[in-house]
Amino acid sequence: MREEKKQMKAEISEMQGELLTLQQEIKKAGISVFVLVEGFAASGKGSLINRLITCIDPRFYRVCSMDRPSPEETRRHFLYRYFRTIPEQGKFTFLDSGWPSILATSNLERSITSDTYKRRIEFVKQFERSLTENGYLLVKIFLNIDEDEQKCRLNRLLADQATAWRVSEHDAWEAKNYCEVKAAYQEIMEKTDSPFAPWHVIEAKKPLISEFYALRYLIDAISDRLHNGIDKKAVAKYVPKLPKPISMPLLHEVDLSLALPREDYEERLKKDQKRLRELHNHIYARHIPVVLLFEGWDAAGKGGAIKRVTQALDARGYEVNPVASPTPPEKNRHYLWRFWEKMPKTGHIALFDRTWYGRVMVERIEGFCDQKEWKRAYREMNEFEYQLASEGTIVIKFWLQIDKDVQLARFNERQETPEKQWKITDEDWRNREKWDAYEEAVNDMLQKTSTEYAPWHIIEGNDKLYARVKTIEIIIDALENALEKPVL
Amino acid sequence: MREEKKQMKAEISEMQGELLTLQQEIKKAGISVFVLVEGFAASGKGSLINRLITCIDPRFYRVCSMDRPSPEETRRHFLYRYFRTIPEQGKFTFLDSGWPSILATSNLERSITSDTYKRRIEFVKQFERSLTENGYLLVKIFLNIDEDEQKCRLNRLLADQATAWRVSEHDAWEAKNYCEVKAAYQEIMEKTDSPFAPWHVIEAKKPLISEFYALRYLIDAISDRLHNGIDKKAVAKYVPKLPKPISMPLLHEVDLSLALPREDYEERLKKDQKRLRELHNHIYARHIPVVLLFEGWDAAGKGGAIKRVTQALDARGYEVNPVASPTPPEKNRHYLWRFWEKMPKTGHIALFDRTWYGRVMVERIEGFCDQKEWKRAYREMNEFEYQLASEGTIVIKFWLQIDKDVQLARFNERQETPEKQWKITDEDWRNREKWDAYEEAVNDMLQKTSTEYAPWHIIEGNDKLYARVKTIEIIIDALENALEKPVL
Repeated sequence: MREEKKQMKAEISEMQGELLTLQQEIKKAGISVFVLVEGFAASGKGSLINRLITCIDPRFYRVCSMDRPSPEETRRHFLYRYFRTIPEQGKFTFLDSGWPSILATSNLERSITSDTYKRRIEFVKQFERSLTENGYLLVKIFLNIDEDEQKCRLNRLLADQATAWRVSEHDAWEAKNYCEVKAAYQEIMEKTDSPFAPWHVIEAKKPLISEFYALRYLIDAISDRLHNGIDKKAVAKYVPKLPKPISMPLLHEVDLSLALPREDYEERLKKDQKRLRELHNHIYARHIPVVLLFEGWDAAGKGGAIKRVTQALDARGYEVNPVASPTPPEKNRHYLWRFWEKMPKTGHIALFDRTWYGRVMVERIEGFCDQKEWKRAYREMNEFEYQLASEGTIVIKFWLQIDKDVQLARFNERQETPEKQWKITDEDWRNREKWDAYEEAVNDMLQKTSTEYAPWHIIEGNDKLYARVKTIEIIIDALENALEKPVL
Repeated sequence: MREEKKQMKAEISEMQGELLTLQQEIKKAGISVFVLVEGFAASGKGSLINRLITCIDPRFYRVCSMDRPSPEETRRHFLYRYFRTIPEQGKFTFLDSGWPSILATSNLERSITSDTYKRRIEFVKQFERSLTENGYLLVKIFLNIDEDEQKCRLNRLLADQATAWRVSEHDAWEAKNYCEVKAAYQEIMEKTDSPFAPWHVIEAKKPLISEFYALRYLIDAISDRLHNGIDKKAVAKYVPKLPKPISMPLLHEVDLSLALPREDYEERLKKDQKRLRELHNHIYARHIPVVLLFEGWDAAGKGGAIKRVTQALDARGYEVNPVASPTPPEKNRHYLWRFWEKMPKTGHIALFDRTWYGRVMVERIEGFCDQKEWKRAYREMNEFEYQLASEGTIVIKFWLQIDKDVQLARFNERQETPEKQWKITDEDWRNREKWDAYEEAVNDMLQKTSTEYAPWHIIEGNDKLYARVKTIEIIIDALENALEKPVL
């Protein structure tokens, strides 16, 4: 027995060396490694993570303890807290428990409906597949102990004053319901097992054994990824079938002669803003989150439209997010990461001045991502919005359309008006030269990503007054519709 | 009367135009405007903010509702949540209530001691002065209503189902204790009134009146800043007298021959790591936050030292922060903003691989900030650390010292060892050429910023083994000392 332990220790030490080398290689290859350590209470998740990281440079990993969500987090989307923790390229994140324990508990406690439970299982599968498609490596480990072992360990912790605080109410609950919890975990693991992110169950009898197998699984997974890359065929099978996009007119078919006289504008705007203010109150009271996306040609009037919307809202209940080029920490992660960060709390409205659709417009045209990436992005964004909408978020998307002459006139006006000069840059002129390429990209985008759950609305923008009123009235309609639905 | 109202409306409309123009000017001048709207419950803070922002481009402001701190926030430093909300250059932040209401309430409720209360008043003054020195404009508005008016407004809100939810328990508490709350606000305003951030009290009888005066104060303050700049003499008077720095040896006096044989190293490291692990448990149980700073020459062994420290810690209780060049949102704010974000929760340890001292080293030498800025930074950083330490954070700073020959040897080794090549960059070689300038900067830094409350420790680093053990033993000493002190 002692001989066996010695042997194991020697192999562990060897594997630690291997992992150190692999850390350099994933850094070079730009792979991010997301390690989920799940398991029963007192199965040794924390201590396993402590052992795994000893050989990794502390600048290249982060450990996140994913206890029960905070009150603040419960006001966010289910995936929000997991998306936030994803590592940068070349780095590790170790999660100390994650979605399985939350799903198991909330299902057993009936704090979510069985529909919600099923939907969230699907979210997890989508999340894991999307990370994989975007170059992440997921390694999922489950530490298994039996009922007696768990009781014994918890009692030992409770007996010592220095460790008793570590046993939470939830741990005690879990121990009392060991069999149900076990069955719940098994079901979740079965449902979220996949060729690219399989579950590794370790019989966690001794810390040394957990460390030995966890290192083995981690090293094998990293080596496999480095040598064989992503198994794209396997991943493709996990793309969910979502409701089909709805058909949209092409940009050149849009009637840009639509206009509104100023008197009518003033009156309707006033009435609309009053109505929107009331609706914002109801939305707040009903805890519904709202996401408003604004895209459009340069100088199409996004800023002006946003302003007329926010004027009607209580400032404590919305946030405007101007979207610029990604910062280095943003560029080094899944491209939707920075948008997840901005997703609204229940009852709040998030407005986006430019959006994730940059991926299929500027990034496509300027070559900031490769063809495979932007082609894949259509379904990724549909999936993202479907995830939001199916948990109750209202998603409305606006494309502000103008013609080339109107743009030129507005560019010239901006250049000639001192207080507007900041709004016009050389880049705007350069983009203008690529009008046709953009028009093609926008038409593709509208056709492929306008859906029942997150529709695009083309706003005829040659007349700014018409555009602003139409925008607000679409929002009013959507909020009224949502409020008519029964409470989830 | 009606005439007067009409006149007021006309002037408001004129001022809105002025504010729109000023918005462009502060953008050009790179001034950030931080507007605190404080006042009694039901005095109309939220609706005033809604009125003020109607004329500002939504991309240039943020509104933050600073309710009672969340459980998560109560585990942070008092200033943490305010520092987080400061605007970027050229933008506005509007705070819907802030430090006065929190200080008034916690003092009246006796949830903090009177010493803590006094200390936090000082923090506020330091915070406001430091923002001003760094180019921020603070505008502080207090909305005053009398007791009867407050009762009447709260009752009106309570009477309507659509608004009753807006009256919080805290509002009710405030109404019951109106006189005490009023006295508390008056005291806080007296103590935090300053020439560069004066209080403006508005008799908030009508929303129109609040809007009128608030616009006036805001416009006057912005115009004054644009035309007259910061009154540096006034600001200088508000620099607090902190305990003097302690004397430090010069770098060339450090005995770099100190070394530790490997057998001794293995043994001491093992013993020290065990002890550090125990202490981390105690620190956690006692809710003490710890900040460990690592600075030193390139290749001095910061990474290796950090690794030996983290190996002893529970991964759920610390975070390693590698500090790179600031991202645009970081560069556009007070230079300490990004570090405030990383300050540990109670019981947690934050390790910094490079720190805010970049300001007086690389930024000084490369000219990334001007002479006035880095010269001011010594006392700013002392103040920052004093703020941390006096609320119970343990702050320990390490300078890892090596000589030029050792650096050269390690650079060469890195270049020749494939798995270490990522550690060496052209910049390292360029920095090496500026050794003398750095040595001067480091000596200045050590003399000016080593304090009783946040001491520098020079680690003799030519022998890595000696350096690692010394580092850990200094941390052990500091934690033991802190744990001997009575609970705050």
